[in-house]
Amino acid sequence: MENHGTAADGPRERILSAASTLFYRHGINATGIGELVEVAGVSKRTLYQLFGSKDELVAAYLRRMSASRHLIERCLDRADLTPRERLVALFDRPRPTFRGCPLHNAAVELTEPGHPGRPVIVAHKRAFLDRLTDTARAAGARDPQALGHRLFVVFEGAMALATSTDDRNAFDYARPVALALIEEAVPGADG
Amino acid sequence: MENHGTAADGPRERILSAASTLFYRHGINATGIGELVEVAGVSKRTLYQLFGSKDELVAAYLRRMSASRHLIERCLDRADLTPRERLVALFDRPRPTFRGCPLHNAAVELTEPGHPGRPVIVAHKRAFLDRLTDTARAAGARDPQALGHRLFVVFEGAMALATSTDDRNAFDYARPVALALIEEAVPGADG
Repeated sequence: MENHGTAADGPRERILSAASTLFYRHGINATGIGELVEVAGVSKRTLYQLFGSKDELVAAYLRRMSASRHLIERCLDRADLTPRERLVALFDRPRPTFRGCPLHNAAVELTEPGHPGRPVIVAHKRAFLDRLTDTARAAGARDPQALGHRLFVVFEGAMALATSTDDRNAFDYARPVALALIEEAVPGADG
Repeated sequence: MENHGTAADGPRERILSAASTLFYRHGINATGIGELVEVAGVSKRTLYQLFGSKDELVAAYLRRMSASRHLIERCLDRADLTPRERLVALFDRPRPTFRGCPLHNAAVELTEPGHPGRPVIVAHKRAFLDRLTDTARAAGARDPQALGHRLFVVFEGAMALATSTDDRNAFDYARPVALALIEEAVPGADG
């Protein structure tokens, strides 16, 4: 991982880039290794040399997604917003290509016990909950943990419902719920 | 469909029953036709004669799931509860084998445009929202549509988060949010 840009990193990067597109758009189980190597422009042999198995490639894909700057929850890192504004920004309508949380979608697909992608998903959601709770604390919430948990479930609901109904107006349903939760939790918050 | 119990219905029923177990537990794309016909005890030829294609079988599976008495949202039909209690019952912890909403899970997996399962999912979610809104009205909500939309997103969040984190305590996060929404929406509701 420390040798960015060397010839050895080229195929790894191309494979992960292809995986990020294909696994998210078409699903993990619907994407075959043949399609992946074709898009990445590498041989199957190279893919297996670098990742060992499809399961390990999926885990690497999920680690990349977990760190992606395109995730909605990255708004909690925005320095141009107040902590309260960061919480509210979670419920802005996502981009039109949004097809749910890539980590959640993988949780739906990876049903085998012991799949190496599962701990990546759980760790991502746990870190997100911690970040939410920290942001709630910075916003002045009386009980940051309670507000964190509640916004967590509402945010996951907006993402899931947008996927189920193929309609981003799920975020419009979620937003007033989040605003009410924030108002109730933060003394003196103004709408 | 009208000839329940005849010899002609046997294999159809067995296939749908196998699909209900395998598609829900292991996922739709991870379940091959070979596995399905083995569990159902029918030939591939019979399956294709009855359903035409895997996509059509998936649509039939989703119609069956949409009508299943095991869905959590069936609590909205319970005659032994008041309308308000029915709304709250959505947020009881589901059974341990719960692995998310089968309709939502299918929405995550069925990414092909025009898949015959998609309209079944959207119709299910729309009917559930209508039922929620009707129940909110019966419970005395000032704005039943607003309460319906809000409980919709919170409920979908509990189900999705339980899948992502493999932990049904997501329902414990959702419950106080739902209670607060109901209390705020229904004049004189008591906790």
